[in-house]
Amino acid sequence: MLIIGERINATRPAVKEAIFRRDSDLIKKEARDQAGAGADYIDVNGGTTPEEELENMLWLCEVVQSAVSAPLCIDSASPGVIEAGLKSHRNGKAMVNSISMEAGKYESILPLVKEHGAGVVALAMDDSGIPRTAKDRLQVVERTVEEAGKHSIPLCDVYVDPLVMALSSDGSAGLMVIEVLQGIRERWPELRTTCGLSNISFGLPDRRLINRTFSAMLMAHGLDSAILDPLDKEMMATIIGGRALLGRDEFCMEYIKAYRAGRL
Amino acid sequence: MLIIGERINATRPAVKEAIFRRDSDLIKKEARDQAGAGADYIDVNGGTTPEEELENMLWLCEVVQSAVSAPLCIDSASPGVIEAGLKSHRNGKAMVNSISMEAGKYESILPLVKEHGAGVVALAMDDSGIPRTAKDRLQVVERTVEEAGKHSIPLCDVYVDPLVMALSSDGSAGLMVIEVLQGIRERWPELRTTCGLSNISFGLPDRRLINRTFSAMLMAHGLDSAILDPLDKEMMATIIGGRALLGRDEFCMEYIKAYRAGRL
Repeated sequence: MLIIGERINATRPAVKEAIFRRDSDLIKKEARDQAGAGADYIDVNGGTTPEEELENMLWLCEVVQSAVSAPLCIDSASPGVIEAGLKSHRNGKAMVNSISMEAGKYESILPLVKEHGAGVVALAMDDSGIPRTAKDRLQVVERTVEEAGKHSIPLCDVYVDPLVMALSSDGSAGLMVIEVLQGIRERWPELRTTCGLSNISFGLPDRRLINRTFSAMLMAHGLDSAILDPLDKEMMATIIGGRALLGRDEFCMEYIKAYRAGRL
Repeated sequence: MLIIGERINATRPAVKEAIFRRDSDLIKKEARDQAGAGADYIDVNGGTTPEEELENMLWLCEVVQSAVSAPLCIDSASPGVIEAGLKSHRNGKAMVNSISMEAGKYESILPLVKEHGAGVVALAMDDSGIPRTAKDRLQVVERTVEEAGKHSIPLCDVYVDPLVMALSSDGSAGLMVIEVLQGIRERWPELRTTCGLSNISFGLPDRRLINRTFSAMLMAHGLDSAILDPLDKEMMATIIGGRALLGRDEFCMEYIKAYRAGRL
């Protein structure tokens, strides 16, 4: 399972402040810490102030790529910011976070994804909002698959996010995600999946227990990727153990190596 | 998910000694501790010395039932011992652990299961041993279903154990169990499932991490029950969180209660 490290996000006060002050040391440390903990991608989000986001993104891309060799996940709702991020990307295959089937954005973002050979996170929602049922979310996925096809983007570059809601306000929130993952596996086995799984535990005590238990459950249903905090050691241990359990770690070598390195 | 507490087993030296010395205090404590930690059933295994097993089982059943109100899982390969255990059982609905499709035992045990209205653990193996593939194990399950039918035992009283092998010697051991669970859900949705899941981690470091990650994965694939050590706090926390995630804990009340009681 691919890990997208979520820590360099301007919604976190310390990161917002570091961006504002152009404190590259803090950003580099966040990048190195996440890559060192096993992040395959480093998400970069430069904030939501439209006038500053583009400059912030260019700065973040430069700083993070100077610190680590991991590719970036360019996190913005703005096609212009995404384009700038993709143009500055040199650490291998980039990812774009995110599109949805809401009108007005995916039409301009998908050509950029194709042009740069990037991956793209696709949220299972459209202009009507977030569908309530798994069936309706799968209909949004169907449209996403069609749009990817129109732009000749291979399905293995599209990471559908089923959208994780809070279990505390909807007891079926966990089952819903599993149902969407099952539907995707059956209908579009090449399509990839991802999610920001920590939403599941919003409002509950011991959130990290819920998060890591949920991650094991979703891995068992074929989740390909997750957007999370790789510095959550117990979460990463669960994922490393989970990979071995799903036969993706020959002779459990990575698991044993992680144990010896004190990472479990 | 039903928890069958595995601790009162004569293969554990301290328990073997307690049985030999008729130390009812130790056995009662083991029973109470497990029930207090959330065990729904208390497994009782009186050892493998044929001449003593029956007496041991009768003593264990008496001592455990005097200490807790949880029903027992009568763990023996001997039809005579199982019959004695069932006859002495008064704590609700008993379970028998176990039958398999090996000739010579299930024919005499299934009538006892029926007579006493008990549940029964059915190992997915037969006279040829443990089948190598999930498909072959499901064929054994098919025979088990037929035999249960012949004895008019409802499928919801039969707990199939897919048989968990060590991941360290077979990288597909985890996937195999998932595949058997999926096959059972598709073909016999009323049939129950269980397993002794700690076998999965044999030979690996940090076994409990692997065990609890595996338990979350299997719960997500519908595992109905597990035979485990309920005093493994992190395992129980995973199961309590897992129940909430699978929508089996209304308003996450049990989860929050466990948190407040310091059980997570």
